[in-house]
Amino acid sequence: MAKRLRIAVVGSGAIGSYYGAKLAHGGSDVHFLIRGDVSDVRQKGLYVRGRGENFRVANVNCYNSTKEIGPCDLVLIAVKATSNVDLIDLIPPLLHERTTLLTLQNGLGNEEFLAEHFGAERVLGGLCFICLGRISRTEIERYDYGHIVIGEYGRKPSERTHAIASQFSACGIKCSVAADLALEHWRKLVWNIPFNGLSILAGGIDTAAILADAALYRAMLALMDEVIDAANKCGHTLERAAAREQIKRTEDMGRYKPSTLLDWKAGKPLEIEAIWGEPLRRAAAAGANTPRLELVYALLKHLDECRQRARPSTIPC
Amino acid sequence: MAKRLRIAVVGSGAIGSYYGAKLAHGGSDVHFLIRGDVSDVRQKGLYVRGRGENFRVANVNCYNSTKEIGPCDLVLIAVKATSNVDLIDLIPPLLHERTTLLTLQNGLGNEEFLAEHFGAERVLGGLCFICLGRISRTEIERYDYGHIVIGEYGRKPSERTHAIASQFSACGIKCSVAADLALEHWRKLVWNIPFNGLSILAGGIDTAAILADAALYRAMLALMDEVIDAANKCGHTLERAAAREQIKRTEDMGRYKPSTLLDWKAGKPLEIEAIWGEPLRRAAAAGANTPRLELVYALLKHLDECRQRARPSTIPC
Repeated sequence: MAKRLRIAVVGSGAIGSYYGAKLAHGGSDVHFLIRGDVSDVRQKGLYVRGRGENFRVANVNCYNSTKEIGPCDLVLIAVKATSNVDLIDLIPPLLHERTTLLTLQNGLGNEEFLAEHFGAERVLGGLCFICLGRISRTEIERYDYGHIVIGEYGRKPSERTHAIASQFSACGIKCSVAADLALEHWRKLVWNIPFNGLSILAGGIDTAAILADAALYRAMLALMDEVIDAANKCGHTLERAAAREQIKRTEDMGRYKPSTLLDWKAGKPLEIEAIWGEPLRRAAAAGANTPRLELVYALLKHLDECRQRARPSTIPC
Repeated sequence: MAKRLRIAVVGSGAIGSYYGAKLAHGGSDVHFLIRGDVSDVRQKGLYVRGRGENFRVANVNCYNSTKEIGPCDLVLIAVKATSNVDLIDLIPPLLHERTTLLTLQNGLGNEEFLAEHFGAERVLGGLCFICLGRISRTEIERYDYGHIVIGEYGRKPSERTHAIASQFSACGIKCSVAADLALEHWRKLVWNIPFNGLSILAGGIDTAAILADAALYRAMLALMDEVIDAANKCGHTLERAAAREQIKRTEDMGRYKPSTLLDWKAGKPLEIEAIWGEPLRRAAAAGANTPRLELVYALLKHLDECRQRARPSTIPC
């Protein structure tokens, strides 16, 4: 790659910290926005461990505001979709004329949000296929996988898409370029919609518990079928086999807790609209029949709203 | 009515206590099985209050075992469907040659259970349309409604059906006789399946909260439609208008907590198979499409099983 990219990471949860640390460890010029206390990260750096990982980034460039970071070539966006409104103020100080915004967020609607506020031509999306645990602000554990699929928002991949993928790959992050970003979103939703949803609604259970219960297994499979059908009706061709592959992968993951379940257990807002609401609206607009998705959405939305209303006491209603 | 019936009440929760007390207060010869301490009921009697009710049955015939009660003409069965297996031992001491068993239990499968163990010719079913609260072992509050619909199991109504209905009516319980008992069960399930289910899955909410949330309202209505369709496919003709009527009645009920929600909050086992499992199996056998019912069943079954496995600590999983 000709030019060393100046990279900002906005959102330093598990995803932002992990990929930012990988890029920094691989020699990229990475600058982290950390909302809250930066002293821990400044003192201890970022420590990444787990499957095939064991490294520390000692000198982490971290800041309390994007104004301190200033213009970058690439901005990785890894805040929860529920905090998108904050990006309206956070992003502008990071922009120069050709800054690229790469959202690593879950679900549908995030690229659209960025396009609306900062121009569609800046926007890329990335799908993270990874199982992470955030042990503390400075420690990330990788349990499984790690690859990213990136693509241009509403366009075919271009030179910059491949340049970014190369930089990721050079830093040890498996990264492929998708011809159809929206298709990849739907492919990921085939997993997220059932597993993230059922894990909460069935009482806070992991993926292995869903696979082990015959009725939940059938519900999971039926939800996958609804999502595949919706994707196809929306013009993104997904084969039925996509479900089978993802189930096989999930069996290998063991007792994994989906990120939304971790958010739920931590009393945080859930990415209801990105993972369930927006896909449901697009499915309905395309004439797909998604009765189970509708029900999962209605239940999760109510649970989340009750929880948020009850803040800061976080008593579930 | 020619003969004064000797009546046993098996199951002294809200339903058994209320209808037993009404019958006793109306001059019937009623004998209650009370598992656990009978001294409170012996000392204080049964007190019924609420909408249009305010009476006490001072001398309650109550017993720790059905052997002490002995043969009766009519047995009202009001245990939770989850305790049906206990009836195998509890019922025989109450039987003479012509004893009638009237189950007031929720859902499908209870008449079949009694028929299998005690002979189909003895069995009647009753649907209770009532909102009750059990304040204590000796105090019952009636919030709304109160009528019963009774019918013969798998037969047309006979002289005895009308005789029992007359005795109920004579004691101030509105009681009608159904030509098709199974149809009435499905009619009640049109309400129980959505409201009892969603009230738990949406976080422990009352009927008014379900009606007030647009997405849950749609889910409730879609579940009603599935149940109506399943009933019709099973040969029990229910009009679409059944849903509309029940919603109207529910609006009038205010902030009502379905019985299954009260069981859930009290850490008791849920009547999963009677209310959701058996209707689902019959719907599937009749070729009905019930995706939401399937999902609700899968989720509730898992929640209930986790809860029961965790007993006596009752930590939800």
